[in-house]
Amino acid sequence: MDVAPVTSSNFFEGVEKLLEVWFAQSEIVQGHGNACLISPEKWKTCLKQAKVEVLDSIEHGGQVALLLSESSMFVSRNRVILKTCGSSLCLNALPYIVQLVRDECGLDIVADCFYSRKNFMKPDHQPHPHQTFENEVIYLNEKLSSNLASYCLGQMNSDCWFLCTLNHCGNPSLIGTNQPDQTLEILMTGLDKDVMAHFVAVDENGKKKLTDQVTSDSGISRLIPDSKINAALFEPCGYSMNGLLPKGQYWTIHITPEPEFSYVSFETNLDTNDYKNLIHDVTALFKPQRFAMTLFRNHLSSVDLSQWNLPDGPSVQSYKRLDKQIAYLDQYCLFYLNFEKI
Amino acid sequence: MDVAPVTSSNFFEGVEKLLEVWFAQSEIVQGHGNACLISPEKWKTCLKQAKVEVLDSIEHGGQVALLLSESSMFVSRNRVILKTCGSSLCLNALPYIVQLVRDECGLDIVADCFYSRKNFMKPDHQPHPHQTFENEVIYLNEKLSSNLASYCLGQMNSDCWFLCTLNHCGNPSLIGTNQPDQTLEILMTGLDKDVMAHFVAVDENGKKKLTDQVTSDSGISRLIPDSKINAALFEPCGYSMNGLLPKGQYWTIHITPEPEFSYVSFETNLDTNDYKNLIHDVTALFKPQRFAMTLFRNHLSSVDLSQWNLPDGPSVQSYKRLDKQIAYLDQYCLFYLNFEKI
Repeated sequence: MDVAPVTSSNFFEGVEKLLEVWFAQSEIVQGHGNACLISPEKWKTCLKQAKVEVLDSIEHGGQVALLLSESSMFVSRNRVILKTCGSSLCLNALPYIVQLVRDECGLDIVADCFYSRKNFMKPDHQPHPHQTFENEVIYLNEKLSSNLASYCLGQMNSDCWFLCTLNHCGNPSLIGTNQPDQTLEILMTGLDKDVMAHFVAVDENGKKKLTDQVTSDSGISRLIPDSKINAALFEPCGYSMNGLLPKGQYWTIHITPEPEFSYVSFETNLDTNDYKNLIHDVTALFKPQRFAMTLFRNHLSSVDLSQWNLPDGPSVQSYKRLDKQIAYLDQYCLFYLNFEKI
Repeated sequence: MDVAPVTSSNFFEGVEKLLEVWFAQSEIVQGHGNACLISPEKWKTCLKQAKVEVLDSIEHGGQVALLLSESSMFVSRNRVILKTCGSSLCLNALPYIVQLVRDECGLDIVADCFYSRKNFMKPDHQPHPHQTFENEVIYLNEKLSSNLASYCLGQMNSDCWFLCTLNHCGNPSLIGTNQPDQTLEILMTGLDKDVMAHFVAVDENGKKKLTDQVTSDSGISRLIPDSKINAALFEPCGYSMNGLLPKGQYWTIHITPEPEFSYVSFETNLDTNDYKNLIHDVTALFKPQRFAMTLFRNHLSSVDLSQWNLPDGPSVQSYKRLDKQIAYLDQYCLFYLNFEKI
């Protein structure tokens, strides 16, 4: 199956901007304290600021997952995750999210905040402040009026991953996350053409594909069984899915299949003590030429780090590890690895 | 003892630019292959390019140490270390060093190269290309015509440490260092005023101090015993020392004592399996408010990393660890830690 020819004029930046905000409630404020109860309609107003639209939503296990025109949003009791790709304005939505959550639920404290992304393929195609990470950090500083710490993991002049987060050091009024938390991300480039053919809207006969069929045929539905899945297949190509599991667990995949700028992201907070099999399954499914992998884990999480702490761990079959970095933040330990196909 | 009042017009950037180049000899080239045999006179020509002068030199244990108007230079058989502070042009000297070592010794291959520095206190006071790390990397790329990897450890928008090095991945023609190698750096700011009073050129009675007396009175001479030491006390204040030990081991200290921008750097490649006592002795001597510490160790080095690999290790008495990062490079493992006085 051939993917339509692509010219630079229809370049699409698959690399997402990822914003994760944890909220808390001060004693003086009234409110039910549950951001899950905010209706998708109300989120739509927020998300307009980021220039993304809500396509669909599902609810399961105390969590709401919104499928967006550019990526996804996950809302649980005290956490909002907004992930947007393309030329969306992810950070523009932040003050509106903070205000909505405060007004609707009484969650008036930003307990923790993480903004992260891989280096863009074409940063010049991004709107302000997303063209440079420095400008994104300046913007976050203005909006959060807080002490921020910003990091670059990997090679600054090549493949890297940026993070900006609240700096709790010497600032005990900041609360942080007070529950087990871990996030695994696998950010893949140079994807296998045959695999990417699944994510084109029409089949060889020009017939429109069914999204659920694509989720199944591609093997995505089998990555994490027993999930409530909500997916979208875009025209002429592209794919997004959200998966929900009990106890606030989620996973999400976003696919930009065009060979000139193919990109697939996988993200999950699955509560497991070993991601080895999942990492293998994801990379074996998509067969990227290169991928970056990050693992965030707070001190309450049960993820076993013994393999991750080894100089060469964790290993991934058929791939050679290039860069590896470990960063110890206030309450989190962060691993960044970069792999290349052998 | 009072240090002379300081205004911003006489600001001095103590933070050094540190260039370390390892050389090798190809089979087709003639030459004795020993950079130690290059005379200090010949180095002077190179160092003019960096806008630094040679004040003095010593030789010991197969190594030459030059005391410079701004910091130090160490030359061993196949390695050149150039460390320059102030508004010197460290990187300007690189092509001249490479040419001199090739012409004089037949060492025609740059086997490895490391350029690193802490964030400057006043980057705007630096000459091009040193105002930004990005520009330094562009300059290095031009001069080395090689595949470079650049990193930022620590917080990009606060205390951090930059590194640019050859990327050996997929480039087997690059040789790297083929002997045990480790470097410890302790980069201190906000230093104790009473300690800094040692490093002012005249005493309470207006009498000029003797450099050796300062080295002894301050406690520096006792940090690593049995070293051949060469030191300089600057007017009106400031201090530099080089220490040489057998088997190519060195240590060096540079002191900018003015309270408005006090800075002390300690660096050594001492061949020990545990730096714990040395780290304690250095920080207890200078009593900085904050310091960054880096440890570089290649796969042949005997430094024991068990404490360094612990999330909270190595601990330093009277100090709280802020950031910690570990980076795994081709042949080196790199630790960056940042500490604040409790």
